[in-house]
Amino acid sequence: MALRPFDIPPLDTAAEAAARARQDRLTKPPGSLGALEEIACRMAAIQGRSRPVVRKKWTIIAAADHGVTAEGVSPYPPDVTAQMVANFLSGGAAINVLAEAAGAEIVIVDCGVRADTPGDATHLRRLGRLHGSANMALGPAMPRAEAERLIGAGADVSHELARKGADIIVTGDMGIGNTTAAAALTAVFTGRRPTEVTGRGTGLDDIGLRRKVQVIERALAVNRPDAADPVGALAGVGGLEIAFLAGVILGAAERRTAVALDGFISGAAALVAQAIARRVTDYCFACHLSAEPGHRVALETLRLKPLLDLQMRLGEGTGAALGVQVVEAAVRLHNEMATFEEAGVSARESEETARASPAPAGPASPVPTSGGYSSPNGRGVTPKPPSPATASRGHPSPKGRGQREARR
Amino acid sequence: MALRPFDIPPLDTAAEAAARARQDRLTKPPGSLGALEEIACRMAAIQGRSRPVVRKKWTIIAAADHGVTAEGVSPYPPDVTAQMVANFLSGGAAINVLAEAAGAEIVIVDCGVRADTPGDATHLRRLGRLHGSANMALGPAMPRAEAERLIGAGADVSHELARKGADIIVTGDMGIGNTTAAAALTAVFTGRRPTEVTGRGTGLDDIGLRRKVQVIERALAVNRPDAADPVGALAGVGGLEIAFLAGVILGAAERRTAVALDGFISGAAALVAQAIARRVTDYCFACHLSAEPGHRVALETLRLKPLLDLQMRLGEGTGAALGVQVVEAAVRLHNEMATFEEAGVSARESEETARASPAPAGPASPVPTSGGYSSPNGRGVTPKPPSPATASRGHPSPKGRGQREARR
Repeated sequence: MALRPFDIPPLDTAAEAAARARQDRLTKPPGSLGALEEIACRMAAIQGRSRPVVRKKWTIIAAADHGVTAEGVSPYPPDVTAQMVANFLSGGAAINVLAEAAGAEIVIVDCGVRADTPGDATHLRRLGRLHGSANMALGPAMPRAEAERLIGAGADVSHELARKGADIIVTGDMGIGNTTAAAALTAVFTGRRPTEVTGRGTGLDDIGLRRKVQVIERALAVNRPDAADPVGALAGVGGLEIAFLAGVILGAAERRTAVALDGFISGAAALVAQAIARRVTDYCFACHLSAEPGHRVALETLRLKPLLDLQMRLGEGTGAALGVQVVEAAVRLHNEMATFEEAGVSARESEETARASPAPAGPASPVPTSGGYSSPNGRGVTPKPPSPATASRGHPSPKGRGQREARR
Repeated sequence: MALRPFDIPPLDTAAEAAARARQDRLTKPPGSLGALEEIACRMAAIQGRSRPVVRKKWTIIAAADHGVTAEGVSPYPPDVTAQMVANFLSGGAAINVLAEAAGAEIVIVDCGVRADTPGDATHLRRLGRLHGSANMALGPAMPRAEAERLIGAGADVSHELARKGADIIVTGDMGIGNTTAAAALTAVFTGRRPTEVTGRGTGLDDIGLRRKVQVIERALAVNRPDAADPVGALAGVGGLEIAFLAGVILGAAERRTAVALDGFISGAAALVAQAIARRVTDYCFACHLSAEPGHRVALETLRLKPLLDLQMRLGEGTGAALGVQVVEAAVRLHNEMATFEEAGVSARESEETARASPAPAGPASPVPTSGGYSSPNGRGVTPKPPSPATASRGHPSPKGRGQREARR
């Protein structure tokens, strides 16, 4: 079975341009919302409408084990993967709290957990055929067919969520040992050396970190992964949950659904997805810069700028769940702020009106009929010098004070 | 009338230590929530309880005009300040959208707007006695007595909100020309030159920026503000809303109420507050790094690290309203995540139990009685090599595949 082709539509540049025009009409100096303006316009381009929405959100947590833990690359035993799946099911993990805060539903997927995982099919989807990957330091992490199958399974879940109305899909992961796989993949797809992209994961000491780098070097030497064959690279030095997440990302992009990428593991999945279909990253937001050093390198190759940097290194989708709140805020601002037109006055008119007929002193309507920033005199244009009358109004004066006192 | 003394209580280090101990028992690798762990522990120290809360939130938007606009330091006419107050009242501004998203109530304060502002006292508090500050390039921006009075008025509002149960107060500002005042104050309290702390504000071009720097240099030469006399510095080169916000920050800290600082203007107010009562910054979160270059410099002096950097430069409290969501997420994680104890198993036991009695295949309870990360074998301690049996379980095998298939 070969990987099916992924047909990623181009971004809707007309919707993006319309969104940008709207941004410039909102009651704020142009550009002053910074990244939030870019996010809103990108969401417009993704969804193909000038007023994008973020209503329905899902967090996918893909869990799997890694045979490479046999090499001592994590201070945690592999059983923790299944224990954490149990914690996700009972609602006690960090991602449960943050997904609820973000208003996102959770989908938990066993992509190949070593120990048996609890929970029935309603609460836990079992989509992996293996009980963990093999030790990549000795040979391929997984059969090529399983990598292809998991990519397809991930894409299928994204399509299903898109049919249910998902506006954004959050990627999350759980897997003891998975920073080793992510670092190996990051090395493959960025062309960097393992020392440059390997970090301490859940808390390795210096000796552990050196060992982890050596294990990755052995894995790369044994499997000879090639960035030009992304599925082969994934099968050689990847992880089952990473394969699945690569599919999630590809499937979401096929359906014009935005993806909120979490940290290092999701970044590695995005690198695989990008190598399969370059356009996929147009649909991705890099939500959080992981404390893992390889993530920064991965984001350079993905050409994505992280929204947040809170020094988190937990995974599970926690960084992305926080990032989704930023994306949602950006879209709400885009849709809910007043424009100059909606305020019913053009900027210059408003200014002249204010001078011609000042508002009456004393209580006025709490819901004024006009408002909004006036347009600047022109970006890059020198403002005209103020009239003497205008300047003098800026000074405090006994008269001004008396007026204000009377109003109070 | 002299400024009243501000008595800022010390942080509660016992509550902070208890919070830190709790963080280390939550089901995650120690430290993996990065800044969110620090935020939760700081909130514990501020509120004096190991389980801090973020329930009631207020955003204070302080508005005032600046006589220095007579020097052409902003591309916007001063009338925009009053127009934006109207926009706040009608709910169309960015801060309206973001405060609602953060679940924060808004308090709008006219600290000295030049034009008459709309709205009755229920919706708009009029606490300024002047219609804008004077042109600081020609003389003091305000009488010293007005600076003192506004600081007191700001503190009073914070006390009132604290009595109403505020867990965190968001600072916001509106005032055409106020980045000029903030830059001048930042120069005073950081010891930097105006060129180092002055930016483009709402969108000055190169010529405008040079003029703005020169205006600030003149203002500093004319008023000779001294960091050792913060009220004098504020009266010389400050702004009416900045004086008020300095009071808001001081009053909140007196009542052990956390402050979510917005960007450059709030940062200047915090510099004034810090010079009045050094301990005040213990109660402050720097929520967002402004695109204004002076803000980074101010934060160094305040010894605060910004939570977000979304290249925003709008003010109004928009950056802080986003930051409050991060603070709230940190506190929710702290309170709502499961601890090892709550999961009912110690880490090592759980591991041994799992090996002795594996979970039955097939559907199990969706709400397991145990879960959570095992403790690492020890930070800085080499994990023991896995047993051959453990290692082999990590490999894919026909048996494993068959089991998984049967379960599905």
